[in-house]
Amino acid sequence: MTTGGQLPGALERLSTLLARLPGVGARSGLRWSFHILSGPRAYAEDLIAALRAVLDGVHFCEDCHHLSEARLCAVCADPSRDARTLCVVEGVVDVLALERARSYGGRYHVLHGALAPMKGVGPHQLRLENLESRLARDAVEEVILATGADVEGEATAVYLARRLGALGVRVTRIATGIPMGGELEYLDDHTLSRALAGRVIVAPGRG
Amino acid sequence: MTTGGQLPGALERLSTLLARLPGVGARSGLRWSFHILSGPRAYAEDLIAALRAVLDGVHFCEDCHHLSEARLCAVCADPSRDARTLCVVEGVVDVLALERARSYGGRYHVLHGALAPMKGVGPHQLRLENLESRLARDAVEEVILATGADVEGEATAVYLARRLGALGVRVTRIATGIPMGGELEYLDDHTLSRALAGRVIVAPGRG
Repeated sequence: MTTGGQLPGALERLSTLLARLPGVGARSGLRWSFHILSGPRAYAEDLIAALRAVLDGVHFCEDCHHLSEARLCAVCADPSRDARTLCVVEGVVDVLALERARSYGGRYHVLHGALAPMKGVGPHQLRLENLESRLARDAVEEVILATGADVEGEATAVYLARRLGALGVRVTRIATGIPMGGELEYLDDHTLSRALAGRVIVAPGRG
Repeated sequence: MTTGGQLPGALERLSTLLARLPGVGARSGLRWSFHILSGPRAYAEDLIAALRAVLDGVHFCEDCHHLSEARLCAVCADPSRDARTLCVVEGVVDVLALERARSYGGRYHVLHGALAPMKGVGPHQLRLENLESRLARDAVEEVILATGADVEGEATAVYLARRLGALGVRVTRIATGIPMGGELEYLDDHTLSRALAGRVIVAPGRG
């Protein structure tokens, strides 16, 4: 008796590959394979074309490692962006967020990660190779460490502050504190402590 | 000031396409696009090849509409499977489940859906076009309705029982009741009622 319980090999392979995407399991992989197979042929063709275009056309900027379709990304290629200020971030999404805020006119350096010794991510796994040469080449005056405020982001900031500080460049860390619209009663102790410790003078007083 | 806040067009397109998969949102689409871009190139190449192979090599069986890499699926092409018994199911995954159980030796008919008037799914949206001709051609003696025990599956079963019953063929419905290993205290009222109503004699008694 032949069994119809075997998936065709191609479908099995597609399911397995989709199931390897982060946060996806075998069940979703299978479901999406069916969806792609049963749906309009144009969708699958578009997906193939988009994957091909990403593979062939999207790279990382040679200078800052941000996404780019050319040798240099839009920020690094723009002469009006101040090359003397470098903002170091963990990932591409951080650049997108900062650019959305439209309050930064310098350039970036994307690490593509944060130090995490427990996961085997040390300095050599980060895109640090050309950071120091950029400092010299562009006569950088300030490096802003804009890694996350979690354990890994803090560890990365501490490491870079020491390493870059030794070169004589000014290194700053973005502020931590209560977020805009944040109500004190809902904030965690750690954020509140940091916000208190980082308080700024708004009226100088008599002293 | 040029902004680095725009995604490269190809990446944007890939994100949008991935976000159209069922149960996926814009955030996951973006995350997976980055994953595909940042990961090993071989993964993306494999994904493209698998999509292409599914598009070009996987079809639906002309007879029963199950998945197939040929004109007929493995079950329909197998002369040892009893063509006089047809099991009607909603989807391909149901065939896979029944085949795994290895207790059915007949053939299938995959509807690719269930009646759902509220969602605009009527008899014309189901793969019914050749069901009646198969009954005649293969001298089918029994049609087993194995659609789900939910509202849509029940509605589909009622509809098919009437339509096929009018042709004089024997139509049966798979049993509903307590699942194997099921404990009564955790079952819903509806399943319990159906299990009671469908009780079978295990000792005939004196009467």
